[in-house]
Amino acid sequence: MNVCKYTFEDYSEIVKNFHGAKAPGVLIGGFMVDLAIRNLPDGVLYDAICETKTCLPDAIQLLTPCTIGNGWLKVINLGLYALTLYQKENNKGVRVFLDAQKMQTWPEIKTWHFKLKQKHEQDMEKIIQEIKAAGDTVLSLQFVTVKPEIAKKMHKGKIAICPKCRETFPADNGDVCLACQGGRPYL
Amino acid sequence: MNVCKYTFEDYSEIVKNFHGAKAPGVLIGGFMVDLAIRNLPDGVLYDAICETKTCLPDAIQLLTPCTIGNGWLKVINLGLYALTLYQKENNKGVRVFLDAQKMQTWPEIKTWHFKLKQKHEQDMEKIIQEIKAAGDTVLSLQFVTVKPEIAKKMHKGKIAICPKCRETFPADNGDVCLACQGGRPYL
Repeated sequence: MNVCKYTFEDYSEIVKNFHGAKAPGVLIGGFMVDLAIRNLPDGVLYDAICETKTCLPDAIQLLTPCTIGNGWLKVINLGLYALTLYQKENNKGVRVFLDAQKMQTWPEIKTWHFKLKQKHEQDMEKIIQEIKAAGDTVLSLQFVTVKPEIAKKMHKGKIAICPKCRETFPADNGDVCLACQGGRPYL
Repeated sequence: MNVCKYTFEDYSEIVKNFHGAKAPGVLIGGFMVDLAIRNLPDGVLYDAICETKTCLPDAIQLLTPCTIGNGWLKVINLGLYALTLYQKENNKGVRVFLDAQKMQTWPEIKTWHFKLKQKHEQDMEKIIQEIKAAGDTVLSLQFVTVKPEIAKKMHKGKIAICPKCRETFPADNGDVCLACQGGRPYL
């Protein structure tokens, strides 16, 4: 079974180069993206929601036009292993999730996902082979409509210079930038 | 001037393929990453913070080992055009930002960044050529230490099955998953 236009092996290499390792979550994510795209009408423009920040965003970024930086991918961290691709035009789309029920017949995937073994006790090659064999059979699909307030594009508006730190910031954020309002992540 | 191991032109093509367009922000971001790396000790392992969600995260993902999905890149959306690469070992790092003062001698960059013209009035090729010519001369640099609570890796802990939707979720999130607690982004 292919992952979009790639063989599983080619996709695994692309994942390794971008993500740093052939991580099971990004590999399964490949089949998730593939299943979602196959269930969208041909040729539509779509945005993406990723319901976890772990691994899965990278599958979306590698296989679709949606990235964090271009704003087509939003991470809404619900801790669920699920993604949605939805049409820009009408917010209608396809949600794909890793199905706990269907995972029961795939012991390596189940053990990995539920963390039933310590990481160093897991045989990564066995997990990857099971992911390849399972393909989309561990996934389920729902047709959804994204809430308009979530789908809405936010624009930064006017750019100003912060009177405190002298850096540029969206004027709508306040009299000074969010860092100077106390959000600075540095000591 | 090169962007890490790439010529500016090769980097532009990589940006186009991943991000969908040769966006000025991702191109400048290339010089920002390059400057940060040159100011880190050789060969250290580092994480990244991006202070805006617009464009810049993609430069970091394309040029460093840090991605959203592997957790090495965190977006802390302060609306500032700045990034920090910091050592995993001691949270010490380099913050690079687009400097409003230094931008004054680069009219195209200034017009683009402050949105002084409508998008359709801008000459993208001129902006890109000015970005290439400016290189890192529109950037400034600070040495920072990331707050430990920001740098800390969060682990998901035990995975459970949500009694309501039957999907898997981090048990620490509550009796039911965050979607069933009201976070579902769908109608």
